[in-house]
Amino acid sequence: MFMDHLQAGAIIYPLMDQIDFTGPFEVLSRLPNSTFHVIGKTLEPVRDTRGLLLTPEETLSEVQPLHLLLVPGGYGQEDLMEDQEVLSFIRSHVERGGYLFAVCTGVLLCGAAGVMNGVPATTHWRVLDLLPYFGAIAVNKRVVEHGRIVTAGGVTAGIDGALHMAAMLRGEQAAKEIQLYMQYAPEPPFDSGTPERAPAEVLNAVTEATSAITARRLETAKRFAAR
Amino acid sequence: MFMDHLQAGAIIYPLMDQIDFTGPFEVLSRLPNSTFHVIGKTLEPVRDTRGLLLTPEETLSEVQPLHLLLVPGGYGQEDLMEDQEVLSFIRSHVERGGYLFAVCTGVLLCGAAGVMNGVPATTHWRVLDLLPYFGAIAVNKRVVEHGRIVTAGGVTAGIDGALHMAAMLRGEQAAKEIQLYMQYAPEPPFDSGTPERAPAEVLNAVTEATSAITARRLETAKRFAAR
Repeated sequence: MFMDHLQAGAIIYPLMDQIDFTGPFEVLSRLPNSTFHVIGKTLEPVRDTRGLLLTPEETLSEVQPLHLLLVPGGYGQEDLMEDQEVLSFIRSHVERGGYLFAVCTGVLLCGAAGVMNGVPATTHWRVLDLLPYFGAIAVNKRVVEHGRIVTAGGVTAGIDGALHMAAMLRGEQAAKEIQLYMQYAPEPPFDSGTPERAPAEVLNAVTEATSAITARRLETAKRFAAR
Repeated sequence: MFMDHLQAGAIIYPLMDQIDFTGPFEVLSRLPNSTFHVIGKTLEPVRDTRGLLLTPEETLSEVQPLHLLLVPGGYGQEDLMEDQEVLSFIRSHVERGGYLFAVCTGVLLCGAAGVMNGVPATTHWRVLDLLPYFGAIAVNKRVVEHGRIVTAGGVTAGIDGALHMAAMLRGEQAAKEIQLYMQYAPEPPFDSGTPERAPAEVLNAVTEATSAITARRLETAKRFAAR
Protein backbone atom coordinates (compact mmCIF):
# COMPACT_ATOMS: atom_id res chain seq x y z
CA MET A 1 0.00 0.00 0.00
CA PHE A 2 1.08 3.49 -0.86
CA MET A 3 0.43 5.93 1.98
CA ASP A 4 1.42 9.39 0.67
CA HIS A 5 -0.67 11.64 -1.52
CA LEU A 6 -0.47 9.90 -4.89
CA GLN A 7 0.58 11.84 -7.98
CA ALA A 8 -0.77 9.88 -10.94
CA GLY A 9 -0.72 10.85 -14.57
CA ALA A 10 -1.19 9.72 -18.15
CA ILE A 11 0.52 10.66 -21.39
CA ILE A 12 -2.03 11.40 -24.10
CA TYR A 13 -1.12 11.78 -27.77
CA PRO A 14 -2.63 11.96 -31.27
CA LEU A 15 -4.25 8.80 -32.65
CA MET A 16 -4.21 7.07 -29.30
CA ASP A 17 -7.16 4.87 -28.44
CA GLN A 18 -9.10 7.05 -26.02
CA ILE A 19 -10.49 4.30 -23.79
CA ASP A 20 -6.97 3.00 -23.08
CA PHE A 21 -6.79 6.25 -21.13
CA THR A 22 -10.38 7.07 -20.14
CA GLY A 23 -11.02 3.54 -18.82
CA PRO A 24 -8.15 3.66 -16.30
CA PHE A 25 -8.82 7.37 -15.64
CA GLU A 26 -12.29 6.45 -14.40
CA VAL A 27 -10.72 4.19 -11.78
CA LEU A 28 -7.47 5.95 -10.93
CA SER A 29 -8.89 9.47 -10.69
CA ARG A 30 -11.07 8.12 -7.86
CA LEU A 31 -8.19 6.83 -5.74
CA PRO A 32 -8.40 8.38 -2.28
CA ASN A 33 -5.78 11.04 -1.56
CA SER A 34 -4.55 11.44 -5.13
CA THR A 35 -4.17 13.88 -8.01
CA PHE A 36 -4.39 12.90 -11.66
CA HIS A 37 -2.30 14.75 -14.25
CA VAL A 38 -3.26 14.68 -17.94
CA ILE A 39 -0.01 15.16 -19.81
CA GLY A 40 0.90 15.90 -23.42
CA LYS A 41 4.01 16.80 -25.39
CA THR A 42 2.33 20.18 -25.72
CA LEU A 43 -0.92 21.63 -24.38
CA GLU A 44 -2.61 21.26 -27.77
CA PRO A 45 -5.72 19.05 -27.74
CA VAL A 46 -5.15 15.69 -29.38
CA ARG A 47 -7.59 13.62 -31.39
CA ASP A 48 -7.85 9.94 -30.67
CA THR A 49 -8.01 7.38 -33.46
CA ARG A 50 -11.79 7.86 -33.81
CA GLY A 51 -11.61 11.65 -33.57
CA LEU A 52 -12.40 12.35 -29.92
CA LEU A 53 -10.72 15.51 -28.65
CA LEU A 54 -8.73 15.16 -25.43
CA THR A 55 -6.88 18.03 -23.82
CA PRO A 56 -3.62 17.75 -21.89
CA GLU A 57 -3.22 20.19 -19.02
CA GLU A 58 0.50 19.80 -18.38
CA THR A 59 3.48 19.05 -20.58
CA LEU A 60 6.06 16.34 -20.21
CA SER A 61 8.68 18.92 -19.39
CA GLU A 62 6.72 20.72 -16.67
CA VAL A 63 4.81 17.98 -14.82
CA GLN A 64 6.11 17.08 -11.40
CA PRO A 65 7.59 13.63 -10.77
CA LEU A 66 4.79 11.07 -10.63
CA HIS A 67 4.27 8.02 -8.48
CA LEU A 68 2.15 6.32 -11.15
CA LEU A 69 2.39 6.76 -14.92
CA LEU A 70 -0.27 5.43 -17.30
CA VAL A 71 0.83 4.84 -20.91
CA PRO A 72 -2.12 4.16 -23.20
CA GLY A 73 -1.92 2.61 -26.66
CA GLY A 74 -3.59 2.97 -30.02
CA TYR A 75 -2.45 3.47 -33.60
CA GLY A 76 -0.56 6.66 -32.75
CA GLN A 77 1.81 4.80 -30.41
CA GLU A 78 3.71 3.79 -33.53
CA ASP A 79 4.49 7.46 -34.31
CA LEU A 80 6.16 7.86 -30.90
CA MET A 81 8.47 4.87 -31.08
CA GLU A 82 11.47 7.10 -31.85
CA ASP A 83 10.28 10.13 -29.88
CA GLN A 84 13.14 10.65 -27.46
CA GLU A 85 11.24 13.10 -25.28
CA VAL A 86 8.44 10.61 -24.63
CA LEU A 87 10.78 7.63 -24.32
CA SER A 88 13.10 9.33 -21.85
CA PHE A 89 10.11 10.54 -19.82
CA ILE A 90 8.96 6.93 -19.42
CA ARG A 91 12.49 5.73 -18.73
CA SER A 92 13.16 8.38 -16.07
CA HIS A 93 9.87 7.56 -14.38
CA VAL A 94 10.82 3.89 -14.05
CA GLU A 95 14.39 4.65 -13.02
CA ARG A 96 13.03 6.91 -10.29
CA GLY A 97 11.09 3.91 -8.93
CA GLY A 98 7.61 4.97 -10.07
CA TYR A 99 4.76 2.60 -10.80
CA LEU A 100 4.23 2.06 -14.52
CA PHE A 101 0.87 1.01 -15.94
CA ALA A 102 0.89 0.36 -19.68
CA VAL A 103 -2.24 -0.54 -21.61
CA CYS A 104 -2.58 -2.16 -25.03
CA THR A 105 0.15 -1.01 -27.45
CA GLY A 106 1.32 1.46 -24.83
CA VAL A 107 3.37 -1.54 -23.75
CA LEU A 108 5.30 -1.37 -27.04
CA LEU A 109 6.09 2.26 -26.30
CA CYS A 110 7.47 1.23 -22.92
CA GLY A 111 9.46 -1.43 -24.76
CA ALA A 112 10.92 1.25 -27.01
CA ALA A 113 11.81 3.21 -23.88
CA GLY A 114 13.91 0.25 -22.81
CA VAL A 115 12.12 -0.51 -19.57
CA MET A 116 10.61 -3.89 -20.47
CA ASN A 117 13.76 -5.98 -20.55
CA GLY A 118 13.09 -9.29 -18.82
CA VAL A 119 9.64 -8.14 -17.72
CA PRO A 120 6.68 -10.53 -18.08
CA ALA A 121 4.00 -8.48 -19.85
CA THR A 122 0.89 -8.48 -21.99
CA THR A 123 -0.45 -6.16 -24.72
CA HIS A 124 -3.17 -6.15 -27.41
CA TRP A 125 -3.66 -9.72 -28.69
CA ARG A 126 -2.75 -8.64 -32.21
CA VAL A 127 0.84 -7.77 -31.21
CA LEU A 128 1.51 -10.02 -28.24
CA ASP A 129 4.20 -11.85 -30.24
CA LEU A 130 6.13 -8.60 -30.69
CA LEU A 131 6.99 -8.23 -27.00
CA PRO A 132 10.15 -10.40 -27.14
CA TYR A 133 11.66 -8.02 -29.70
CA PHE A 134 11.77 -5.52 -26.83
CA GLY A 135 13.17 -8.01 -24.37
CA ALA A 136 9.85 -8.55 -22.60
CA ILE A 137 8.36 -11.96 -21.83
CA ALA A 138 4.97 -12.30 -23.54
CA VAL A 139 2.23 -13.57 -21.24
CA ASN A 140 -1.21 -14.27 -22.73
CA LYS A 141 -3.18 -12.83 -19.82
CA ARG A 142 -5.48 -9.84 -19.48
CA VAL A 143 -3.41 -8.18 -16.75
CA VAL A 144 0.18 -8.94 -15.75
CA GLU A 145 1.73 -7.55 -12.58
CA HIS A 146 5.48 -7.59 -12.19
CA GLY A 147 6.76 -5.52 -9.30
CA ARG A 148 5.96 -1.91 -10.10
CA ILE A 149 5.21 -2.60 -13.78
CA VAL A 150 1.63 -3.57 -14.58
CA THR A 151 0.54 -4.25 -18.14
CA ALA A 152 -2.93 -4.78 -19.57
CA GLY A 153 -4.07 -6.34 -22.83
CA GLY A 154 -6.00 -4.56 -25.55
CA VAL A 155 -8.09 -1.46 -25.02
CA THR A 156 -10.75 -2.34 -22.39
CA ALA A 157 -8.27 -4.48 -20.42
CA GLY A 158 -7.11 -1.16 -18.99
CA ILE A 159 -10.19 -1.05 -16.76
CA ASP A 160 -9.33 -4.40 -15.19
CA GLY A 161 -5.68 -3.42 -14.90
CA ALA A 162 -6.59 -0.15 -13.22
CA LEU A 163 -8.62 -1.98 -10.58
CA HIS A 164 -5.56 -4.15 -9.90
CA MET A 165 -3.49 -0.99 -9.52
CA ALA A 166 -6.11 0.56 -7.25
CA ALA A 167 -5.91 -2.44 -4.93
CA MET A 168 -2.12 -2.44 -5.07
CA LEU A 169 -1.90 1.24 -4.18
CA ARG A 170 -4.87 1.80 -1.86
CA GLY A 171 -6.03 -1.64 -0.80
CA GLU A 172 -8.88 -3.91 -1.85
CA GLN A 173 -11.61 -2.04 -0.01
CA ALA A 174 -10.88 1.15 -1.97
CA ALA A 175 -10.75 -0.78 -5.25
CA LYS A 176 -14.05 -2.52 -4.53
CA GLU A 177 -15.76 0.76 -3.66
CA ILE A 178 -14.67 2.22 -6.99
CA GLN A 179 -15.87 -0.92 -8.77
CA LEU A 180 -19.30 -0.68 -7.14
CA TYR A 181 -19.59 3.03 -7.88
CA MET A 182 -18.76 2.24 -11.54
CA GLN A 183 -21.21 -0.67 -11.46
CA TYR A 184 -18.47 -2.73 -13.08
CA ALA A 185 -20.17 -6.10 -13.36
CA PRO A 186 -19.72 -6.48 -17.10
CA GLU A 187 -22.06 -8.53 -19.26
CA PRO A 188 -20.74 -8.54 -22.81
CA PRO A 189 -23.64 -9.52 -25.06
CA PHE A 190 -21.34 -11.73 -27.17
CA ASP A 191 -18.39 -13.98 -26.45
CA SER A 192 -16.12 -12.37 -28.97
CA GLY A 193 -13.56 -10.50 -26.91
CA THR A 194 -10.45 -12.63 -27.50
CA PRO A 195 -8.95 -14.28 -30.57
CA GLU A 196 -9.43 -17.65 -28.88
CA ARG A 197 -13.19 -17.10 -28.38
CA ALA A 198 -14.25 -14.97 -31.35
CA PRO A 199 -15.89 -16.75 -34.29
CA ALA A 200 -13.44 -17.42 -37.14
CA GLU A 201 -15.06 -14.90 -39.50
CA VAL A 202 -14.82 -12.20 -36.83
CA LEU A 203 -11.19 -13.00 -36.11
CA ASN A 204 -10.37 -12.98 -39.82
CA ALA A 205 -12.07 -9.63 -40.36
CA VAL A 206 -10.26 -7.90 -37.48
CA THR A 207 -6.93 -9.50 -38.38
CA GLU A 208 -7.32 -8.24 -41.94
CA ALA A 209 -8.44 -4.75 -40.85
CA THR A 210 -5.35 -4.38 -38.65
CA SER A 211 -2.81 -5.94 -41.01
CA ALA A 212 -1.17 -2.70 -42.20
CA ILE A 213 -0.54 -1.26 -38.72
CA THR A 214 0.57 -4.65 -37.45
CA ALA A 215 3.09 -4.99 -40.29
CA ARG A 216 4.43 -1.55 -39.45
CA ARG A 217 4.72 -2.47 -35.78
CA LEU A 218 6.60 -5.65 -36.67
CA GLU A 219 9.12 -3.70 -38.73
CA THR A 220 9.67 -1.32 -35.83
CA ALA A 221 10.04 -4.17 -33.37
CA LYS A 222 12.66 -5.84 -35.58
CA ARG A 223 14.56 -2.59 -35.80
CA PHE A 224 14.67 -2.37 -32.00
CA ALA A 225 15.73 -5.98 -31.64
CA ALA A 226 18.58 -5.38 -34.07
CA ARG A 227 20.08 -2.56 -31.98
CA MET B 1 -30.70 -3.33 -39.14
CA PHE B 2 -30.21 0.27 -40.13
CA MET B 3 -28.93 0.61 -43.70
CA ASP B 4 -28.29 4.34 -44.26
CA HIS B 5 -25.26 6.30 -43.17
CA LEU B 6 -25.78 6.58 -39.43
CA GLN B 7 -25.64 9.97 -37.72
CA ALA B 8 -24.88 9.27 -34.09
CA GLY B 9 -24.15 11.75 -31.36
CA ALA B 10 -23.81 12.35 -27.64
CA ILE B 11 -24.64 15.29 -25.40
CA ILE B 12 -21.75 16.11 -23.09
CA TYR B 13 -22.03 18.49 -20.15
CA PRO B 14 -20.22 19.66 -17.00
CA LEU B 15 -19.87 17.15 -14.14
CA MET B 16 -20.97 14.24 -16.28
CA ASP B 17 -19.25 10.92 -15.69
CA GLN B 18 -16.86 10.73 -18.63
CA ILE B 19 -16.95 6.96 -19.17
CA ASP B 20 -20.73 7.03 -19.54
CA PHE B 21 -19.80 8.75 -22.80
CA THR B 22 -16.31 7.48 -23.67
CA GLY B 23 -17.28 3.83 -23.13
CA PRO B 24 -20.12 3.90 -25.68
CA PHE B 25 -18.09 6.25 -27.93
CA GLU B 26 -15.43 3.55 -28.23
CA VAL B 27 -18.05 1.17 -29.64
CA LEU B 28 -20.39 3.47 -31.55
CA SER B 29 -17.70 5.55 -33.24
CA ARG B 30 -16.56 2.30 -34.87
CA LEU B 31 -19.91 1.45 -36.43
CA PRO B 32 -19.46 0.97 -40.17
CA ASN B 33 -20.86 3.78 -42.31
CA SER B 34 -21.44 6.25 -39.51
CA THR B 35 -20.49 9.67 -38.17
CA PHE B 36 -20.30 10.53 -34.48
CA HIS B 37 -21.18 14.04 -33.29
CA VAL B 38 -19.95 15.31 -29.92
CA ILE B 39 -22.53 17.88 -28.83
CA GLY B 40 -22.66 20.53 -26.12
CA LYS B 41 -24.93 23.38 -25.12
CA THR B 42 -22.00 25.54 -26.23
CA LEU B 43 -18.59 24.73 -27.75
CA GLU B 44 -16.86 25.34 -24.42
CA PRO B 45 -14.92 22.35 -23.09
CA VAL B 46 -16.62 20.70 -20.14
CA ARG B 47 -15.03 19.02 -17.14
CA ASP B 48 -16.35 15.68 -16.04
CA THR B 49 -16.94 14.91 -12.37
CA ARG B 50 -13.26 13.92 -11.92
CA GLY B 51 -11.94 16.86 -13.89
CA LEU B 52 -11.32 15.40 -17.34
CA LEU B 53 -11.72 17.98 -20.12
CA LEU B 54 -14.00 16.97 -22.98
CA THR B 55 -14.70 19.24 -25.92
CA PRO B 56 -17.97 19.44 -27.84
CA GLU B 57 -17.65 20.17 -31.54
CA GLU B 58 -21.25 21.07 -32.31
CA THR B 59 -24.02 22.71 -30.34
CA LEU B 60 -27.52 21.44 -29.68
CA SER B 61 -28.94 24.16 -31.89
CA GLU B 62 -26.72 23.49 -34.90
CA VAL B 63 -26.29 19.71 -35.05
CA GLN B 64 -28.21 17.92 -37.77
CA PRO B 65 -31.01 15.51 -36.88
CA LEU B 66 -29.50 12.30 -35.49
CA HIS B 67 -30.47 8.69 -35.89
CA LEU B 68 -28.95 7.75 -32.54
CA LEU B 69 -28.59 9.96 -29.46
CA LEU B 70 -26.47 8.95 -26.46
CA VAL B 71 -27.32 10.61 -23.14
CA PRO B 72 -24.66 9.94 -20.51
CA GLY B 73 -25.10 10.42 -16.77
CA GLY B 74 -23.08 11.61 -13.82
CA TYR B 75 -23.54 14.12 -11.01
CA GLY B 76 -24.07 16.99 -13.47
CA GLN B 77 -27.21 15.43 -14.90
CA GLU B 78 -29.03 16.84 -11.89
CA ASP B 79 -28.17 20.40 -12.98
CA LEU B 80 -29.89 19.81 -16.35
CA MET B 81 -33.18 18.46 -15.04
CA GLU B 82 -34.91 21.79 -15.71
CA ASP B 83 -32.82 22.79 -18.73
CA GLN B 84 -35.47 23.21 -21.39
CA GLU B 85 -32.97 23.35 -24.25
CA VAL B 86 -31.51 19.95 -23.38
CA LEU B 87 -34.87 18.42 -22.50
CA SER B 88 -36.56 19.55 -25.71
CA PHE B 89 -33.56 18.32 -27.72
CA ILE B 90 -34.01 14.83 -26.28
CA ARG B 91 -37.80 14.99 -26.70
CA SER B 92 -37.61 16.11 -30.33
CA HIS B 93 -35.13 13.35 -31.09
CA VAL B 94 -37.50 10.69 -29.77
CA GLU B 95 -40.56 12.25 -31.40
CA ARG B 96 -38.69 12.17 -34.71
CA GLY B 97 -38.27 8.41 -34.29
CA GLY B 98 -34.56 8.38 -33.43
CA TYR B 99 -32.87 5.70 -31.37
CA LEU B 100 -32.19 6.81 -27.81
CA PHE B 101 -29.42 5.31 -25.71
CA ALA B 102 -29.30 6.54 -22.13
CA VAL B 103 -26.62 5.47 -19.68
CA CYS B 104 -26.62 5.66 -15.89
CA THR B 105 -28.36 8.79 -14.59
CA GLY B 106 -28.69 9.98 -18.19
CA VAL B 107 -31.89 7.94 -17.93
CA LEU B 108 -33.23 10.39 -15.34
CA LEU B 109 -32.56 13.22 -17.76
CA CYS B 110 -34.59 11.39 -20.39
CA GLY B 111 -37.26 10.96 -17.74
CA ALA B 112 -37.28 14.70 -17.17
CA ALA B 113 -37.63 15.14 -20.93
CA GLY B 114 -40.85 13.16 -20.71
CA VAL B 115 -39.88 10.32 -23.01
CA MET B 116 -39.75 7.47 -20.48
CA ASN B 117 -43.47 7.16 -19.78
CA GLY B 118 -44.35 3.46 -19.66
CA VAL B 119 -40.87 2.46 -20.81
CA PRO B 120 -39.11 -0.44 -19.06
CA ALA B 121 -35.66 0.90 -18.19
CA THR B 122 -32.62 0.66 -15.98
CA THR B 123 -30.18 3.21 -14.51
CA HIS B 124 -27.43 3.39 -11.88
CA TRP B 125 -28.29 0.97 -9.04
CA ARG B 126 -28.31 3.85 -6.56
CA VAL B 127 -31.31 5.51 -8.22
CA LEU B 128 -33.15 2.61 -9.84
CA ASP B 129 -36.10 3.19 -7.53
CA LEU B 130 -36.51 6.75 -8.84
CA LEU B 131 -37.53 5.66 -12.33
CA PRO B 132 -41.25 5.27 -11.54
CA TYR B 133 -41.41 8.97 -10.56
CA PHE B 134 -40.81 9.64 -14.26
CA GLY B 135 -43.34 7.08 -15.40
CA ALA B 136 -40.72 4.50 -16.37
CA ILE B 137 -40.83 0.86 -15.29
CA ALA B 138 -37.71 0.03 -13.25
CA VAL B 139 -35.97 -3.16 -14.39
CA ASN B 140 -32.98 -4.40 -12.40
CA LYS B 141 -30.91 -5.42 -15.42
CA ARG B 142 -27.65 -4.15 -16.87
CA VAL B 143 -29.15 -3.29 -20.25
CA VAL B 144 -32.81 -2.90 -21.16
CA GLU B 145 -34.00 -2.67 -24.76
CA HIS B 146 -37.48 -1.37 -25.47
CA GLY B 147 -38.09 -0.57 -29.10
CA ARG B 148 -35.83 2.31 -30.00
CA ILE B 149 -35.04 3.19 -26.40
CA VAL B 150 -32.10 1.35 -24.85
CA THR B 151 -31.00 2.06 -21.29
CA ALA B 152 -27.91 0.90 -19.44
CA GLY B 153 -27.16 0.73 -15.72
CA GLY B 154 -24.41 2.63 -13.98
CA VAL B 155 -21.30 3.98 -15.66
CA THR B 156 -19.53 0.98 -17.26
CA ALA B 157 -22.85 -0.62 -18.26
CA GLY B 158 -22.72 1.80 -21.19
CA ILE B 159 -20.11 -0.40 -22.87
CA ASP B 160 -22.40 -3.43 -22.78
CA GLY B 161 -25.36 -1.33 -23.87
CA ALA B 162 -23.39 0.10 -26.78
CA LEU B 163 -22.57 -3.40 -28.03
CA HIS B 164 -26.30 -4.19 -27.92
CA MET B 165 -26.95 -1.04 -29.96
CA ALA B 166 -24.16 -1.93 -32.40
CA ALA B 167 -25.81 -5.31 -33.06
CA MET B 168 -29.25 -3.72 -33.34
CA LEU B 169 -28.06 -1.14 -35.85
CA ARG B 170 -25.39 -2.98 -37.84
CA GLY B 171 -25.82 -6.66 -37.04
CA GLU B 172 -24.03 -9.10 -34.77
CA GLN B 173 -20.99 -9.60 -36.97
CA ALA B 174 -20.14 -5.87 -36.82
CA ALA B 175 -20.70 -5.79 -33.05
CA LYS B 176 -18.49 -8.83 -32.53
CA GLU B 177 -15.70 -7.34 -34.63
CA ILE B 178 -15.75 -4.20 -32.50
CA GLN B 179 -15.74 -6.33 -29.36
CA LEU B 180 -12.70 -8.29 -30.53
CA TYR B 181 -10.86 -5.14 -31.58
CA MET B 182 -11.54 -3.71 -28.09
CA GLN B 183 -10.51 -7.02 -26.54
CA TYR B 184 -13.65 -6.79 -24.45
CA ALA B 185 -13.44 -9.99 -22.44
CA PRO B 186 -13.60 -8.36 -19.04
CA GLU B 187 -12.07 -9.93 -15.94
CA PRO B 188 -12.90 -7.72 -12.95
CA PRO B 189 -10.42 -8.62 -10.21
CA PHE B 190 -13.18 -8.44 -7.57
CA ASP B 191 -16.86 -9.36 -7.46
CA SER B 192 -18.00 -5.99 -6.23
CA GLY B 193 -19.79 -4.47 -9.19
CA THR B 194 -23.41 -4.61 -8.01
CA PRO B 195 -25.12 -3.86 -4.70
CA GLU B 196 -26.22 -7.51 -4.57
CA ARG B 197 -22.63 -8.82 -4.86
CA ALA B 198 -20.50 -6.20 -3.14
CA PRO B 199 -19.43 -6.87 0.45
CA ALA B 200 -21.62 -5.07 3.01
CA GLU B 201 -18.88 -2.64 4.09
CA VAL B 202 -18.30 -1.67 0.44
CA LEU B 203 -22.00 -1.17 -0.19
CA ASN B 204 -22.33 0.90 2.96
CA ALA B 205 -19.39 3.11 2.05
CA VAL B 206 -20.64 3.85 -1.47
CA THR B 207 -24.21 4.36 -0.28
CA GLU B 208 -22.97 6.84 2.30
CA ALA B 209 -20.66 8.63 -0.18
CA THR B 210 -23.55 9.14 -2.61
CA SER B 211 -26.23 10.03 -0.09
CA ALA B 212 -26.29 13.80 -0.71
CA ILE B 213 -26.64 13.57 -4.51
CA THR B 214 -29.17 10.75 -4.15
CA ALA B 215 -31.29 12.82 -1.78
CA ARG B 216 -31.19 15.68 -4.27
CA ARG B 217 -32.23 13.37 -7.09
CA LEU B 218 -35.10 12.03 -5.03
CA GLU B 219 -36.39 15.57 -4.38
CA THR B 220 -36.25 16.30 -8.10
CA ALA B 221 -37.99 13.05 -8.97
CA LYS B 222 -40.80 13.81 -6.53
CA ARG B 223 -41.21 17.25 -8.05
CA PHE B 224 -41.63 15.70 -11.49
CA ALA B 225 -44.08 13.11 -10.24
CA ALA B 226 -46.17 15.88 -8.68
CA ARG B 227 -46.63 17.70 -11.98
